[in-house]
Amino acid sequence: MKLASLKSGGRDGTLVVVSRDLARAIAVPDIAPTLQAALDDWEVKAAQLAHISAALNAGALPGEMRFLPEAGHSPLPRAYQWADGSAYVNHVELVRKARGATMPPEFWTDPLMYQGGSDSFLGPCDPIVAGSEDWGIDFEAEVAVITGDVPMCATPEACGAQIRLVMLVNDVSLRNLIPAELAKGFGFFQSKPASSFSPVAVTLDELGEAWREGRLHRPLDITLNGDWFGSPNAGLDMTFAFPALIAHAAKTRELEAGSIIGSGTVSNLDKRTGSGCIAEKRCLETLAQGQPVTPYLKFGDRVKIEMSDAEGRSIFGAIEQVVSKPTGR
Amino acid sequence: MKLASLKSGGRDGTLVVVSRDLARAIAVPDIAPTLQAALDDWEVKAAQLAHISAALNAGALPGEMRFLPEAGHSPLPRAYQWADGSAYVNHVELVRKARGATMPPEFWTDPLMYQGGSDSFLGPCDPIVAGSEDWGIDFEAEVAVITGDVPMCATPEACGAQIRLVMLVNDVSLRNLIPAELAKGFGFFQSKPASSFSPVAVTLDELGEAWREGRLHRPLDITLNGDWFGSPNAGLDMTFAFPALIAHAAKTRELEAGSIIGSGTVSNLDKRTGSGCIAEKRCLETLAQGQPVTPYLKFGDRVKIEMSDAEGRSIFGAIEQVVSKPTGR
Repeated sequence: MKLASLKSGGRDGTLVVVSRDLARAIAVPDIAPTLQAALDDWEVKAAQLAHISAALNAGALPGEMRFLPEAGHSPLPRAYQWADGSAYVNHVELVRKARGATMPPEFWTDPLMYQGGSDSFLGPCDPIVAGSEDWGIDFEAEVAVITGDVPMCATPEACGAQIRLVMLVNDVSLRNLIPAELAKGFGFFQSKPASSFSPVAVTLDELGEAWREGRLHRPLDITLNGDWFGSPNAGLDMTFAFPALIAHAAKTRELEAGSIIGSGTVSNLDKRTGSGCIAEKRCLETLAQGQPVTPYLKFGDRVKIEMSDAEGRSIFGAIEQVVSKPTGR
Repeated sequence: MKLASLKSGGRDGTLVVVSRDLARAIAVPDIAPTLQAALDDWEVKAAQLAHISAALNAGALPGEMRFLPEAGHSPLPRAYQWADGSAYVNHVELVRKARGATMPPEFWTDPLMYQGGSDSFLGPCDPIVAGSEDWGIDFEAEVAVITGDVPMCATPEACGAQIRLVMLVNDVSLRNLIPAELAKGFGFFQSKPASSFSPVAVTLDELGEAWREGRLHRPLDITLNGDWFGSPNAGLDMTFAFPALIAHAAKTRELEAGSIIGSGTVSNLDKRTGSGCIAEKRCLETLAQGQPVTPYLKFGDRVKIEMSDAEGRSIFGAIEQVVSKPTGR
């Protein structure tokens, strides 16, 4: 099934079941008012939601509405956890190479992961508001999963069984704030502002053969101001599959239902697929010609991140955002 | 007023108003079932809760119960954000000095802060479960505030006005996992397992003169297995007051109501007040005698963190936790 949250209805929005073609939706207040409420009691709610989903896909339902992604919020408008991995290790190696640094060999066996802010996500079509273009505004096109409850020290196999939903992410990054922040030793904070997620999150059965071995084997479609930017396949070159990423997050503490675990910027070894973020493209330019050429995002720039199934139909709806100055200043 | 969350009632527990002497409590389902629900609509709910608080402090109320801190959860059993500063900069300098490193001068002007996991806090009297004593289990005694909605780029003054509640924290840390994790560059993750908070969170008016200039001017009472470990005054040597810490967190993104911002380990320049964590004590030992003497926590060790008012009455109730092996293994 496919699930989304309308912006109306409060801080957590209103849960809707969305038709497979993303054209129609129906609220389900008698089952769960919000997606978090459904995740909190998934064993009971999932079957009830699946029943509605089947009926909605079979034909018109009383009370259904047109689904407009731009009226939607991120599936979880706020979440109790957002932990983002960096599972495409060749991307990490490339970024390091561009700044003349080698990568420790254990990066191939021990996942990188950072704790992100999860209190206030952007909607999939909300502007990316930044205080200054000098911050080095960038997008990162990623895949993420939403988990159920995961006990501390759970095995990757057990973690895989707790994957409830899959969605896309734009992990907005402020590149020019990163060096000074990481030099302080405590990780990202100001350099990772609010992220946005695809309008729709889907269960694994919606992905069919594209979901295997804990990875989503489809290319992302990434455009910048309407021009192709990249189409890396999320299933290729993903060193750590989602079950391994979840197990890393749960090594020393349990994860509560509704935790979001991200893949990190999708990146393929075959660079004909382009890049999932501007920073990687700039690294490739630096390696090829000694300096970066592509600028970071400017106010007014438009980023679009989407993924289609084998028949060319959008799976999750599009993240489509314009970079914007703060309002009222 | 003083607020707490009982463990019963679901993942967010049940909000109760607690009497000033921490002896009695009353649930307020008609006002807000959970603390997060109250924070989500604070402008309306705070006055209603204050009315109940005044009545409870004036005498017995129908439906009141005995308040048992050990039956309570952290005031927010799960939260949308937990961001912990390191505001006692002399502590940071000391820790660096012990490992032979100097501290960059900008640490006195630019706060250190890390994004913590907030999906699943420990209750104030829950065991600290760790997979191994070899992880270097430590406590950190801190003060934290819970905020309302804070706009991006808010001034420290505006941030100070959004402080809703104050509480104590035990920011559990796994010291032996920190060096390898920080060397990876993405900050803390596995080295910062679930934190616990005092049984009760209080509004600023409950603190009277002890709350001034955005700091809580009272000593913590910290014991380890019943022995005095430290009594650093949280109002002294706090380089960055809470309004400055909140403003740092809100520099590039808004903070949603219910965000928890921590002070970092409380530490005084006058070392006769002891330490707020074992790591600092070990640093002092290293500087004095060339090597650390005090071991990190062992299974069965008991940590207690509390704070009293000028008349010796507990303000927040005690965090009192035993270190424990995982159950069922």
